[in-house]
Amino acid sequence: MRPQSSVQVQVRDLIIGGPKPAVCLPLVGETRARVIEEAEALTALQPDLLEWRIDGYEGVEDIQDSLALLKDMRRIISNIPLIFTCRIDQEGGMRSLSSEHRLQLVGAAMATGDIDLLDIEICSGRVFIDAAKEKAVKHDVKLILSYHNFTETPSKSFIYAKLTAAREAGADIAKVAVMPKNHNDVLTLLRASWAARKETVDCPIVTMSMGEEGVVSRLAGGLYGSDITFAVGMGISAPGQIPIAELRQGMAVLYRD
Amino acid sequence: MRPQSSVQVQVRDLIIGGPKPAVCLPLVGETRARVIEEAEALTALQPDLLEWRIDGYEGVEDIQDSLALLKDMRRIISNIPLIFTCRIDQEGGMRSLSSEHRLQLVGAAMATGDIDLLDIEICSGRVFIDAAKEKAVKHDVKLILSYHNFTETPSKSFIYAKLTAAREAGADIAKVAVMPKNHNDVLTLLRASWAARKETVDCPIVTMSMGEEGVVSRLAGGLYGSDITFAVGMGISAPGQIPIAELRQGMAVLYRD
Repeated sequence: MRPQSSVQVQVRDLIIGGPKPAVCLPLVGETRARVIEEAEALTALQPDLLEWRIDGYEGVEDIQDSLALLKDMRRIISNIPLIFTCRIDQEGGMRSLSSEHRLQLVGAAMATGDIDLLDIEICSGRVFIDAAKEKAVKHDVKLILSYHNFTETPSKSFIYAKLTAAREAGADIAKVAVMPKNHNDVLTLLRASWAARKETVDCPIVTMSMGEEGVVSRLAGGLYGSDITFAVGMGISAPGQIPIAELRQGMAVLYRD
Repeated sequence: MRPQSSVQVQVRDLIIGGPKPAVCLPLVGETRARVIEEAEALTALQPDLLEWRIDGYEGVEDIQDSLALLKDMRRIISNIPLIFTCRIDQEGGMRSLSSEHRLQLVGAAMATGDIDLLDIEICSGRVFIDAAKEKAVKHDVKLILSYHNFTETPSKSFIYAKLTAAREAGADIAKVAVMPKNHNDVLTLLRASWAARKETVDCPIVTMSMGEEGVVSRLAGGLYGSDITFAVGMGISAPGQIPIAELRQGMAVLYRD
């Protein structure tokens, strides 16, 4: 049995924090045509969850255009829960956008009812997070607060503290993604996840070690408390993601009923 | 890339300590007919390595009978390297046998040329190990010195010390198998393996966390230095072993070229 959170998060028919981690596929297309193509292909793969990395989309600076594409996407993906994520370049994202524009964009997206979860980097800062949280509560969108480190794996206590801080800052789900320099670093991430799950963080968590060495965490992270794992449908949104068929193949061995 | 030993061990055509961990299947049959049936079935599964747990065999007290069965087994398994293991009940084995009988049995088995590796528990003691080692060197059989704990997972430093002690006591391959009480204990075993591989132990190692929680270590242990992983062909020799097809399925995801 894997350790579960005392608090679960329900989005549409999906319970995050249940007996098995949810498998999420990212949409990262640059053009409208590509995003639509991805939405169709990824829906056919029947993931538990989708994430639109709208910072990959060339029309992200036009809110009306973005919302129109979101509406078409929702029609295609039907009832699959959707995470909406707009990372800027300083956060490992694909665009440079102002705080004002981002807040307007995520607010408008939440108001449509087409998105279920919003992912914001903790480094966006208190003001931005509080403003987004207020809108999220209003529109019944769940908030993921995330920490990313694309260069190294901080200490176990640092990772633990980030998960705790995310929860304290209002996260419905706390997320940490770090880069290992070797296989041992992956164990640090797993130990921190286990400790957070067992000790203080009373909400679902999402943790992963990226890159080639981190693949173990994408398969086995759920055994250490992680509630969502990301795989590749058509494109990757972070290094180390593997095709969903392989992820499911590996998870089938580890999560035996 | 997984960390590899500077010293490798070759048995027949198999290099233990190479780029991928070897997959070993145990023969645990109680009767001659069952052992023969297992030898045939397991050979068809094309493992890298086989282990005869002769303590499972009802004829183990009769050396001539045991050697005759070994001869038939070798004919069936052809060139697959064979570990010969006779555990007594105090070591988690299936029989109570005298030290004298065991030493005579393993000595006779080594003299046939039909076995390639001999596994002895470190708790067998210095006198027994030294006597077995002398015969092993004479007959060019490689020695595995192993530590088992079927009730718990000792500390990282304890496991590390056991691997180091096995090497110092003359092991060609050092082995540790421990029982986790939770998923976090599995990380302790993996961390100890990594440290032993990276720091002091200059021979192949075999490490695993047993039981249900330990399955991760059977799939991913090789990434932390373990050079052999055990799966189920027909019968299990330790708790937590999974069918070879599933093990290979999981390993295919983790050991990508």
